[in-house]
Amino acid sequence: MLEELKQRVLDANLLLPKYGLITFTWGNVSEIDREKGIVAIKPSGVEYDVMTRDDIVLVDLDGNIVEGNLRPSSDLDTHLEFYRNFPNIGGVVHTHSTWATSFAQAGKDIIPLGTTQADYFHGAVPCTRFMTEEEIHGDYELETGKVIVEEFKTRNIDPDRVPGVLVHSHGPFTWGTDGFNAVHNAVVLEECAKMNAIASLLSNNEIDSMQQVLLDKHFNRKHGPGAYYGQAK
Amino acid sequence: MLEELKQRVLDANLLLPKYGLITFTWGNVSEIDREKGIVAIKPSGVEYDVMTRDDIVLVDLDGNIVEGNLRPSSDLDTHLEFYRNFPNIGGVVHTHSTWATSFAQAGKDIIPLGTTQADYFHGAVPCTRFMTEEEIHGDYELETGKVIVEEFKTRNIDPDRVPGVLVHSHGPFTWGTDGFNAVHNAVVLEECAKMNAIASLLSNNEIDSMQQVLLDKHFNRKHGPGAYYGQAK
Amino acid sequence: MLEELKQRVLDANLLLPKYGLITFTWGNVSEIDREKGIVAIKPSGVEYDVMTRDDIVLVDLDGNIVEGNLRPSSDLDTHLEFYRNFPNIGGVVHTHSTWATSFAQAGKDIIPLGTTQADYFHGAVPCTRFMTEEEIHGDYELETGKVIVEEFKTRNIDPDRVPGVLVHSHGPFTWGTDGFNAVHNAVVLEECAKMNAIASLLSNNEIDSMQQVLLDKHFNRKHGPGAYYGQAK
Amino acid sequence: MLEELKQRVLDANLLLPKYGLITFTWGNVSEIDREKGIVAIKPSGVEYDVMTRDDIVLVDLDGNIVEGNLRPSSDLDTHLEFYRNFPNIGGVVHTHSTWATSFAQAGKDIIPLGTTQADYFHGAVPCTRFMTEEEIHGDYELETGKVIVEEFKTRNIDPDRVPGVLVHSHGPFTWGTDGFNAVHNAVVLEECAKMNAIASLLSNNEIDSMQQVLLDKHFNRKHGPGAYYGQAK
Repeated sequence: MLEELKQRVLDANLLLPKYGLITFTWGNVSEIDREKGIVAIKPSGVEYDVMTRDDIVLVDLDGNIVEGNLRPSSDLDTHLEFYRNFPNIGGVVHTHSTWATSFAQAGKDIIPLGTTQADYFHGAVPCTRFMTEEEIHGDYELETGKVIVEEFKTRNIDPDRVPGVLVHSHGPFTWGTDGFNAVHNAVVLEECAKMNAIASLLSNNEIDSMQQVLLDKHFNRKHGPGAYYGQAK
Repeated sequence: MLEELKQRVLDANLLLPKYGLITFTWGNVSEIDREKGIVAIKPSGVEYDVMTRDDIVLVDLDGNIVEGNLRPSSDLDTHLEFYRNFPNIGGVVHTHSTWATSFAQAGKDIIPLGTTQADYFHGAVPCTRFMTEEEIHGDYELETGKVIVEEFKTRNIDPDRVPGVLVHSHGPFTWGTDGFNAVHNAVVLEECAKMNAIASLLSNNEIDSMQQVLLDKHFNRKHGPGAYYGQAK
Repeated sequence: MLEELKQRVLDANLLLPKYGLITFTWGNVSEIDREKGIVAIKPSGVEYDVMTRDDIVLVDLDGNIVEGNLRPSSDLDTHLEFYRNFPNIGGVVHTHSTWATSFAQAGKDIIPLGTTQADYFHGAVPCTRFMTEEEIHGDYELETGKVIVEEFKTRNIDPDRVPGVLVHSHGPFTWGTDGFNAVHNAVVLEECAKMNAIASLLSNNEIDSMQQVLLDKHFNRKHGPGAYYGQAK
Repeated sequence: MLEELKQRVLDANLLLPKYGLITFTWGNVSEIDREKGIVAIKPSGVEYDVMTRDDIVLVDLDGNIVEGNLRPSSDLDTHLEFYRNFPNIGGVVHTHSTWATSFAQAGKDIIPLGTTQADYFHGAVPCTRFMTEEEIHGDYELETGKVIVEEFKTRNIDPDRVPGVLVHSHGPFTWGTDGFNAVHNAVVLEECAKMNAIASLLSNNEIDSMQQVLLDKHFNRKHGPGAYYGQAK
């Protein structure tokens, strides 16, 4: 069942090494079929160059395995928490990409410094708070998802306008309309992180966010009601 | 019409991914036929690996589409402002290349620190001022071009001797005798930005421009009346 | 004799250029057959693209050549000191990989800042003390090994939980269950070094280790008794 | 005449793009036939992918063209000054490689921080003084060579033990027993520059040279009378 979904998730996962976002198996992509309530996700710890469509695991939104012989990604419960709380998203990506992960390790938001970020993220990509000992000792991957969702609620950030987050001392998650779009956003986030780091270092780590009006302009030029970037649809 | 111009612009655009200057579709090259007053430019948001000669859009200097079924690059009006104000240039490139864009995000000129830059840019590559709210809310891409032209006039910089600029909080534009030469200058600018950043960081961000006499020597060795770099013509 | 071991050591050595860990011949992998007490190691100064299985040198734990026409890696005595003192390891790698070596040159531990490191190293990757003039003038490569072993004993670090070290002013060694696993850890160490450096620079070189409880969680998730990362065995 | 020398110089030049040391045509390799007093060098401004053996220019030690239809590299007179003053060298390389050039732009020596540098350079790779206006306006490329030779004499550095230099605000030259060896040293210098930069930044640009005794040990292990690195000859 859902062979097409599984193929798409396989293909989206294979983009991670292609774009240089991962080392070994440190990343995973999932995609949801909202109608059926089924999520397809990469299996845990399987090498990218031997992975096949049949290795992709299907689960329901409670994490029950619906199809598949392999254990799903250990980050499954974090993915599911996204799908349960961010109703418009269709795909989720987790990586340990170098520059975004460095910001996560420094515990810093990726604040918007230029139009590259503004074209995709309507503001800072937030870094979550430290997790508590209870959360870490508890249902860790689920709690990771909860901390992320909490961060977006507390800061009043719209996940449809800021499709990414940094988990403190861990790394980035991005999401999108489907798995491919989520990977696209992961590539953008990594590039934004790198350019933010260089600009920050050139400014002795004292740099402010870009003008709000320019941030709004660029985000809306691509995503607003009067968007005029790309080809008309 | 102008099939050769369109082919050249296609080829020049394809150099951007080859030289690692762009991610996805974040860049565009145009070239002008001065005699006919026609500019050929990349279409907006089309992937590089599927773009063909027929996708290249032809416009006049007022931005009217002369030929082409696709919407031109959203940066078209910035390109046109260059052609209208810098009469000797034949090609324009815009990218979000990593290191040059980082300088734009930091709001810093790329000051000349060595002969690599001096061989191509007779001085600092300037970073423009912040745009006003009116300019951003107005005809944004046109106003971007106007701010660039203003920067060159105010600072008394000759665009034929400094074929590049950084738009504040955005990224670089370069230009040249044609599209290929403009791409060439985009590659040089990115390398100069990287080496400037590293040298600056090694100097605690306190570094001065190179000697004026050495800057003059190298620029003129390649571009002055007695130029002796390369093969005699 | 031991053709399979030699082939494995050849293959593991060839991974070093594949993963971008070495320039020219600056690296070597060895693996031990614990039952026979035989170590297979790369020959000294032989180019990777011409190396064959027959070039791999077999020695006993005292360094006597058992088979092979070439001189073993000049770092042989350091490798042997590992095998004699760390009884559970099966393979050793030495490289001058860029970021890890930079930490060695700065004389700094790679402290744990994120889960990437925690997944493989249960704590900081230590940098050894300066060697004394006597040690350098003495049996240098053996003394290098002794200084490493001393560092692990003095700091009470378990080499099975921290499979890597930085030799001061020199570079990294990593180890593992066999040669391939040691190379795997060398790749991880290099990536951790790079992300640690960037995070440190973004924090003005004032950054603390990650939470101990998160470090424990991630290390044990992969290596503890209840490990649940990857596929069940 | 000297077809073999020309072929070697062509091959050595083609290593520059292979090793990522150059952008466009920003580099050149020469090699000398000491017996005949003939130097073979790359032509000026010719693209690497179209260069053939017949494009290599032969000159005598006074710079007179002995064979070749193209203009020699504009850096010829600097190369010749090396051959006239450093009697044991057989090849010279000039590049604008990213990290070494950044040190040249910062006006900083590449001090020895680790055994990677010590294996090839017995001390700091010096950065020359600023050139005077007279030198720059005079026979510039020859004066560049003279300033380099002066730097080695003034500081009492043996060019056979430190086969490289940084020309202030310009970039590196390296040399060696022949063109290939000079390219080898250019690769090493670039890697040493990168690791020196990272180590320096991790140390707030306050870092000292490595222990002299370790520097001596490693240099002599490869180049001293009792050298034991690599295979016996």
